[in-house]
Amino acid sequence: MIYIGVDLGGTNIAVGVVDEAGKILSEASVKTLANRPWQEIIRDMGRCIHMALDKGNFKEEDVASIGIGIPGVANQETGVVIFCTNLGWANIPLRDELQKYINKPVYIDNDANVAALAENYAGVSAGCKSSVFITLGTGVGGGVVIDGKPWGGAHGRAGEIGHMNLIPDGVPCTCGNNGCVERYCSATALIRMGKQACMGYPECEIMRLCGGDVERISAKTVIDAAKAGDPVAVRIFNEYSKYLTMMINTITAFFDPEMIVIGGGVSHAGEMLINPIREQLPRYIMFKAIPAPKIELAHLGNEAGIIGAAMLGK
Amino acid sequence: MIYIGVDLGGTNIAVGVVDEAGKILSEASVKTLANRPWQEIIRDMGRCIHMALDKGNFKEEDVASIGIGIPGVANQETGVVIFCTNLGWANIPLRDELQKYINKPVYIDNDANVAALAENYAGVSAGCKSSVFITLGTGVGGGVVIDGKPWGGAHGRAGEIGHMNLIPDGVPCTCGNNGCVERYCSATALIRMGKQACMGYPECEIMRLCGGDVERISAKTVIDAAKAGDPVAVRIFNEYSKYLTMMINTITAFFDPEMIVIGGGVSHAGEMLINPIREQLPRYIMFKAIPAPKIELAHLGNEAGIIGAAMLGK
Repeated sequence: MIYIGVDLGGTNIAVGVVDEAGKILSEASVKTLANRPWQEIIRDMGRCIHMALDKGNFKEEDVASIGIGIPGVANQETGVVIFCTNLGWANIPLRDELQKYINKPVYIDNDANVAALAENYAGVSAGCKSSVFITLGTGVGGGVVIDGKPWGGAHGRAGEIGHMNLIPDGVPCTCGNNGCVERYCSATALIRMGKQACMGYPECEIMRLCGGDVERISAKTVIDAAKAGDPVAVRIFNEYSKYLTMMINTITAFFDPEMIVIGGGVSHAGEMLINPIREQLPRYIMFKAIPAPKIELAHLGNEAGIIGAAMLGK
Repeated sequence: MIYIGVDLGGTNIAVGVVDEAGKILSEASVKTLANRPWQEIIRDMGRCIHMALDKGNFKEEDVASIGIGIPGVANQETGVVIFCTNLGWANIPLRDELQKYINKPVYIDNDANVAALAENYAGVSAGCKSSVFITLGTGVGGGVVIDGKPWGGAHGRAGEIGHMNLIPDGVPCTCGNNGCVERYCSATALIRMGKQACMGYPECEIMRLCGGDVERISAKTVIDAAKAGDPVAVRIFNEYSKYLTMMINTITAFFDPEMIVIGGGVSHAGEMLINPIREQLPRYIMFKAIPAPKIELAHLGNEAGIIGAAMLGK
């Protein structure tokens, strides 16, 4: 059997035909054109699925199921997208509408849960009984996988790691709360800390790398300056690692997964990101005599969205 | 079939014969006498199981399994108690030793996980697909139940809610970390906050209730003073509720259970404890349009230890 994975983004709809092991066999994509009526977007999703099948010479009857990763929250039972902010969707009957174009079982989940599942099938956490995926990008997202299934929680909001509390009464968050993980552990947080440091230390390497224009500071600027040994950037990165480790300690105390996988843009910092967490975590965790969760970098890149979505139906 | 539940405490070993619905049919108990060799304690545990069976006129062949709740961490696969601090146990082969006295399947789990399971079978969270139990006592413990099974995590430390991070670089904790949940959400935390307040406000109701001796302040003293409307105690209790709500928000963001059950000594404050959490939580959580986990007081008292242990084998 083959499985269809759909990665529904604000810019593109990417579709892949995936085998049982999580390998992509053929792919197709179309523009999302998010401002259109949702019926048209879903019609094109159906068209794109047939394109991907045709490309690999697969037949509709070989398809076991279709999985869709969305940047939002879905009701697993009804197949309705409760909301999907950057498409402007609220209560959209995605499953029923898509089945007009291809009549197969349809599973829908949040894109971070889907990425977590992809790593659990075909990536670094393959074979783990429990894993938590944390994506460090513009925001902080996450997904929890238990026994090969994504854990969405009772109401579909599980894995919202970016909105765990980190600092009481801390930096205001877009969610209306204060001091969320996202405000301290995202690429956006690194940029904020970099900008602040440049005010106090205009001679620092971060300032040099951004050519004196703090609006050009990216997470990579701060990471590169820290790699170069700039003391201001190193201090920022140490603070950032501490926040990450505290958040990972909280996940460990509550859930104690076999592995914690770090992905997203900031994870391109590689060993420099992961090593301080591995070093610091044992000082935080309870029961130091028993092993800590393994901390690993994500292995899959952009294809995680397709692979994980496909595996929703497995 | 009947199920044996054993609640192994530092003072008593309590045993119950429990039916499939989680109802206790007969009971027996013996002193733990924790300073004895572990072989003697386990022998008496076996003896106590036979006493409970005899009391209810049950036969050994009716017993499906034996479950034991311990104040420590066990390896589920080997049946070995990894450690159990207040018995001074480390790497004790509890299952194998107990089977010398009654040859039935033996399951061992942490006492907070066991209490969580009891509520899930015969208490307030009965029928929930996912629930988190939080016990607010001298310390803060917890247990996670998924699909009727306790979630111990990959290494047996899941549910250590008391040692999730709450306040970065906060009050030093017995675990070696700083700012753990336990330092702000336990009865001990209420006592600390009460004592501190009495220094600054010696005319407050807390001081009057403890007869001017701050060493006599208990969690109940602070709660009673707050119930009486004392502004100092009310301020403490508001701060305490805020810490609880932040911790519950973090659990909701990460795990999103159907229900969160609050037990332990502080939960005797009842509606006064639970109502502020219910009121504040919706302001914290992500996706306010979808329901929050239900917040409820535990229904079972001391018998939770026996019932939950018995249900480990179900």
